[in-house]
Amino acid sequence: MTDSPDVVALLRAELGDLVDTSPESRDAARADKSGHRAAEPPLAVVHAERVEHVQATLRIASATGTPVVTRGAGTGCAGGANAGRGEIALSVRRMTRVLEVSPEDLLAVVEPGIINAELNDHLSAYGLWWAPDPASRAVSTVGGNIATGAGGLLCAKYGVVRDAVLGVDVVLADGRLIRMGHRSVKGVTGLDLTSLMIGSEGRLGVIVGATLKLRRLVPGDVCTLTATFPSVREAAAGSAAVTASGAQPSIMELMDAASLAAAYGLLGLVPPTPGASQLAIQTDGPAAVAEAEAIATLLTSLGASVAVTSDRAEGDRLLAIRRSMHAAMESLGRSLIEDVSVPRSALPAMFDEIARVEQHYGVTIPTIAHAGDGNLHPNFVFTPDPDAPDEVPAVVWEAADDLFRAALRLGGTLTGEHGIGLLKRRWLADELGEDQWRLQRDIVRVFDPRGILNPGKVFDT
Amino acid sequence: MTDSPDVVALLRAELGDLVDTSPESRDAARADKSGHRAAEPPLAVVHAERVEHVQATLRIASATGTPVVTRGAGTGCAGGANAGRGEIALSVRRMTRVLEVSPEDLLAVVEPGIINAELNDHLSAYGLWWAPDPASRAVSTVGGNIATGAGGLLCAKYGVVRDAVLGVDVVLADGRLIRMGHRSVKGVTGLDLTSLMIGSEGRLGVIVGATLKLRRLVPGDVCTLTATFPSVREAAAGSAAVTASGAQPSIMELMDAASLAAAYGLLGLVPPTPGASQLAIQTDGPAAVAEAEAIATLLTSLGASVAVTSDRAEGDRLLAIRRSMHAAMESLGRSLIEDVSVPRSALPAMFDEIARVEQHYGVTIPTIAHAGDGNLHPNFVFTPDPDAPDEVPAVVWEAADDLFRAALRLGGTLTGEHGIGLLKRRWLADELGEDQWRLQRDIVRVFDPRGILNPGKVFDT
Repeated sequence: MTDSPDVVALLRAELGDLVDTSPESRDAARADKSGHRAAEPPLAVVHAERVEHVQATLRIASATGTPVVTRGAGTGCAGGANAGRGEIALSVRRMTRVLEVSPEDLLAVVEPGIINAELNDHLSAYGLWWAPDPASRAVSTVGGNIATGAGGLLCAKYGVVRDAVLGVDVVLADGRLIRMGHRSVKGVTGLDLTSLMIGSEGRLGVIVGATLKLRRLVPGDVCTLTATFPSVREAAAGSAAVTASGAQPSIMELMDAASLAAAYGLLGLVPPTPGASQLAIQTDGPAAVAEAEAIATLLTSLGASVAVTSDRAEGDRLLAIRRSMHAAMESLGRSLIEDVSVPRSALPAMFDEIARVEQHYGVTIPTIAHAGDGNLHPNFVFTPDPDAPDEVPAVVWEAADDLFRAALRLGGTLTGEHGIGLLKRRWLADELGEDQWRLQRDIVRVFDPRGILNPGKVFDT
Repeated sequence: MTDSPDVVALLRAELGDLVDTSPESRDAARADKSGHRAAEPPLAVVHAERVEHVQATLRIASATGTPVVTRGAGTGCAGGANAGRGEIALSVRRMTRVLEVSPEDLLAVVEPGIINAELNDHLSAYGLWWAPDPASRAVSTVGGNIATGAGGLLCAKYGVVRDAVLGVDVVLADGRLIRMGHRSVKGVTGLDLTSLMIGSEGRLGVIVGATLKLRRLVPGDVCTLTATFPSVREAAAGSAAVTASGAQPSIMELMDAASLAAAYGLLGLVPPTPGASQLAIQTDGPAAVAEAEAIATLLTSLGASVAVTSDRAEGDRLLAIRRSMHAAMESLGRSLIEDVSVPRSALPAMFDEIARVEQHYGVTIPTIAHAGDGNLHPNFVFTPDPDAPDEVPAVVWEAADDLFRAALRLGGTLTGEHGIGLLKRRWLADELGEDQWRLQRDIVRVFDPRGILNPGKVFDT
């Protein structure tokens, strides 16, 4: 660790007012949306506005051995962008330009700090969109989406970030800029470093630009339906039946009884039947109406009470319950938002495991799931210890540990779309195995031999 | 280099008859479909039938410092699987089992040696398919498709290999087995090593298993149309217009005048008008007929003579011209099959560059293109020097060099789907830049510190 005032002075000499040491900014950089906060604030926040600012910051960090934590909008759920003592928080949030939109080649070249929804507003004028749609899309950045390998609601039909990035521009730990990937649909020149950057959570380099693969806006109707089941297991079986039928909804979300009740409460609706769980489904494209009708018939035959509409406003109203879920969870108090993903056929079994974990540890775990792709967000609700308000209680971690191991047993993964960050490091080797864990850590060292990029995140070394 | 008889003896002691030192087998392992042959045969061909055979081979190779060249069906186009002096050719061609097909989870777990078309025959009984469809699909292996990051005809609509692999099992240089990736739709645990393996051309490890992402067979009609234009530039502009219209054909292939004339000649058809070029297009799915009609109207308005059918047999007849292309090229003599890819909008400009290169170097370059995704296969036809029958003449490489640089200038890439192998190593740093080239080579060293895996391929060190 170098003497910190020197680093700030060096940064200031080169970057002037972009170097922000105000207590508010440094404090804000300690946390993301995971609930975790670094114990102390970072040295400074650098507000990069251009690629050269990122390069200058990394040259100084590299020369002084100072750790750098790259941040976008700070909406991560795993603590991956939390900056603490002795670290530089490097914000790319001001780098928001759309440098190119090519409708002919269905691509856009953007800076990393642009908000996902703002990019899509911009693209809609061209009849285009970027498909990744994390639930945070109104507040999260494209760079953050790439750095975490974000997913979202539309993934089963329209893919995840990995499927929607052609190339990235990356500033390496020592400040050099390299351009990975390509502008063509196909390209296999050398190793696929673009894919390696996706989901690398700040450990390999700083993403300062991206060439995104776009889609044309989907023409035709959008149909929305909700299907209410007497229990979560029946709802999960219903979603598995929809997938097995060959229908391809654009959205298929599942809310268990506790999360549904919380959302109804928040929205001031008449409470649902106790135990009731819901699927919220959308279909789109030329077969939207036919698919919605087939799904409605199927789910009704499985005992669901179904509402269906092809009116967009009415559809928005039906989906409002799902969209209010984040706020509904917050209304229940503090929670640890988890993110396991299992093969779709294992969804009912995973809900059984959640019920078992709830019982065994005496915790409440309202759960929503991107049922179309087997990705669950169990929310471990807890009351913080007044003596350690920033910490997740031990029993919650024990319950989460049990849940993670259940997901792995079912052929699943620790994290479908949030990443490992700080909070899931200790389970990483359980999923990867020791050999692969070591191989991955050695790759990090190739990119960052001095270990200054987001140290301690993902890998605990 | 160790003393070779020892290595063969060690292999035989452990693997018995799987170790093949017959002159025929060793000779066959020298070459692929690129036309390039290693100057001398390898020490032996090991016919691995199980993962343990691969592990045993690599343990012996590692202990003795012997290079290992992994091979499937030997259908590569860049010399990547050619094995030479002092090397072990490790064939996984006999590892052909389909270990699991899960219609619920839309995945299959397979061994690497199964032929792409045979896998798809197997999957069709479940109403499923694996989308990557290189032109070599009847003869190339799934493992080879993954190792090269293969593309194919259907890519613009249905994706490339990168989009269709959930995980791979890999034997490392020292014989350890690791499992990368996941079975769930989403998964972002650690670095995406699965993507890094795709297209790694034998430099990082030996792929001994793969979890493939499947699709349901597409219901509905398949419409086929051919559009014949007076010139290749008009055909290229036609394909760009189809893409710009928002139509999404499953196949859109372009044949220039020379390749079209060769195919007509091979099939004994009445020769086309001199200079005429053709697009062969297929549409599928619920909107197939409407899309085909819209495309036909558009291309007719652009001056094409259009034939369209929704009859599958008639469609096969129309596509037969495109499918005969490989044989048609071989009928012209020896050729160097190239594989540049450019942004779709640059396709007409790329054809202008090909015409310029033909003129400038006095070579003939019949060209076919996966026009829907901007991937061109210029075939440099040549007469071999009788004194060096295995070598591509210098003038052809000069012309190819000029063409590669043109593709890069147009925002394209050296290789869309064939890989770098042996034949394009010298241009790799031109596309990647020195910094990225070195970074990639250093990643190879993490996987294979002793440099025994396919040394000299992709990277010349």
